[in-house]
Amino acid sequence: VIEEIEVAPPQANEVRIKIVASSLCRSDLYLLREGKKDFNFPLVLGHEAAGIVESVGPGVTEFKQGDKVIPIFISQCRECRFCKSPKTNLCDNSDLIQCLVPNDGMPEPDSRLTCKGKKLIQYMGTSTFSEYTVVNQNAVAKVDPAAPLDKVCLLGCGICTGYGAAVNTAKVEPGSTCAVFGLGAVGLAAVMGCKAAGAKRIIAVDTNPDKFDKAKEFGATEFVNPNDHDKPISQVLSDMTSGGVDYSLECIGNVGVMRSALESCVKGWGISVIVGFTNVHDLSTRPVQLLLGRTWTGSAFGGFKSKDGVQQMVKAYMDKKIKVDEFITHNLTLNEVNDAIELLKQGKR
Amino acid sequence: VIEEIEVAPPQANEVRIKIVASSLCRSDLYLLREGKKDFNFPLVLGHEAAGIVESVGPGVTEFKQGDKVIPIFISQCRECRFCKSPKTNLCDNSDLIQCLVPNDGMPEPDSRLTCKGKKLIQYMGTSTFSEYTVVNQNAVAKVDPAAPLDKVCLLGCGICTGYGAAVNTAKVEPGSTCAVFGLGAVGLAAVMGCKAAGAKRIIAVDTNPDKFDKAKEFGATEFVNPNDHDKPISQVLSDMTSGGVDYSLECIGNVGVMRSALESCVKGWGISVIVGFTNVHDLSTRPVQLLLGRTWTGSAFGGFKSKDGVQQMVKAYMDKKIKVDEFITHNLTLNEVNDAIELLKQGKR
Repeated sequence: VIEEIEVAPPQANEVRIKIVASSLCRSDLYLLREGKKDFNFPLVLGHEAAGIVESVGPGVTEFKQGDKVIPIFISQCRECRFCKSPKTNLCDNSDLIQCLVPNDGMPEPDSRLTCKGKKLIQYMGTSTFSEYTVVNQNAVAKVDPAAPLDKVCLLGCGICTGYGAAVNTAKVEPGSTCAVFGLGAVGLAAVMGCKAAGAKRIIAVDTNPDKFDKAKEFGATEFVNPNDHDKPISQVLSDMTSGGVDYSLECIGNVGVMRSALESCVKGWGISVIVGFTNVHDLSTRPVQLLLGRTWTGSAFGGFKSKDGVQQMVKAYMDKKIKVDEFITHNLTLNEVNDAIELLKQGKR
Repeated sequence: VIEEIEVAPPQANEVRIKIVASSLCRSDLYLLREGKKDFNFPLVLGHEAAGIVESVGPGVTEFKQGDKVIPIFISQCRECRFCKSPKTNLCDNSDLIQCLVPNDGMPEPDSRLTCKGKKLIQYMGTSTFSEYTVVNQNAVAKVDPAAPLDKVCLLGCGICTGYGAAVNTAKVEPGSTCAVFGLGAVGLAAVMGCKAAGAKRIIAVDTNPDKFDKAKEFGATEFVNPNDHDKPISQVLSDMTSGGVDYSLECIGNVGVMRSALESCVKGWGISVIVGFTNVHDLSTRPVQLLLGRTWTGSAFGGFKSKDGVQQMVKAYMDKKIKVDEFITHNLTLNEVNDAIELLKQGKR
């Protein structure tokens, strides 16, 4: 529902942001579907947005009123052992895990949002389906003042997540063969990442053939609709590639597809990256799939250190090195957020 | 049962080997337990051995009568795309997969072994619990004439498998923290590999505390018996290491332990390697384990290119850079092979 809420002033190290544009991610939908029982309510959704700093709390020196910013659901404190390691983009001072897997007994993080006197949970630490939100300065990236906020908001999650999964996590090599499962915004960004990394063949897999034209625009070279085949999709891809793909990226968040994506990889060196979020069921496969040298891994936010990654990707967009505008299908007002959710459910984005 | 069998002369590209010593591996036991229904019989077990070339077939130039050799269950043809890739030790001309997962509809590989006129299946392409066996020259490594065959036979599987899993597959880094699950020969070799790679902490995990003294000899720094704890072992290890180990190696072949090993890894960069063989049940975990940056992979024969790896490891043994003698617990004759199996079942090796 659309409600009037109160957004308290920022406290120490916090930034209050006037949200200018927020896009809709399948992780918002995840909460409304599979994840519902894992979360406490009331809660404000939205985590892929851009805005302008309205005010800052004590101790904030990196931001000032009027700065264009993107809030991010993973922080980058630059101090913890994760931030100091080149191997990961996680941050020990991030609420990510707590937000995505909240039933682990940890207390809910605090928030500045209240409605009728009741504290609201801040989904993924951001809650951008709101005119204002308050975020820790470690989870905010300052962006180029020339950047169009109604476009670069997409760099707050989906595009970085998919693109980075190919470039940073899978580390796709030139001349390789890739398969991308699921052609939502994350999947299209993964296709774009595979292409940027120099993949020779990019096989786009989706049960909705309406997505194929768009995938081609982003770099896909072949298309497979699992519904067109009697064989398991892993067998179809293995046949198409004489033994399996070098890299597969699961951009849906479905444990059955995760298995297919892994088993579509070539033995010996195939790498399957889980990009889509889900945490309701176990993923599974036969041990021999891994014993024969396949690798199963995953990443959040495409493995990008959050502040650095957003700035790098905004720059890449401004330099016309990555597509962003092409992801946008509809422009709606905040009052129409439920219509947006309906469009996403119908695969019309 | 012990039977008289006929071992036909080697055909083109084949080598007939007089087996001098063969050790017993848990994969032999696997077949007798979980894997039984997957295999055709009659079959000759044994795949970890050393011997002397008795005769060679047409086209064999690399070997001559009298050479000391180790047959290997993965070939190295040096021609296929796997042999040519530095990323894997698999070989397209190997019977490995066919032997380990034989119910995939592929024909059983041919063999030179017959008993009472009936062709015998050659387990893992080797069948070393026999006075003679015939193996393709691509699956035989020539070793130093000074090497004691009753010792280096262990380099035909177990030691290379465990050691290589740490060094080649996990690529353990200096100063890191490792956990090794299961302290049979493969697990002890994994401990030795972790130590050789410079790991600072090596936590040995086994429900049989009799193994701990031996593990210490190989380099383990700490010991955990899951039976001593009420908490899941992944939680115990996480508590011991402030968040999980950098590397874990599953050296048992049990899908429950595979899950524990993965979940014992630190988020962000933890790598879990499956070393123990099993293929009866699915392995599983929650997707978030991988989404938070853990990597699940595995290897056969420790990722060593088979001929090259055996030669390298025999040299390391002759140069006293790795232990081999210390793995040996009993010396039995071929007639006592069933007693050896009994000792292995009882954890007395």
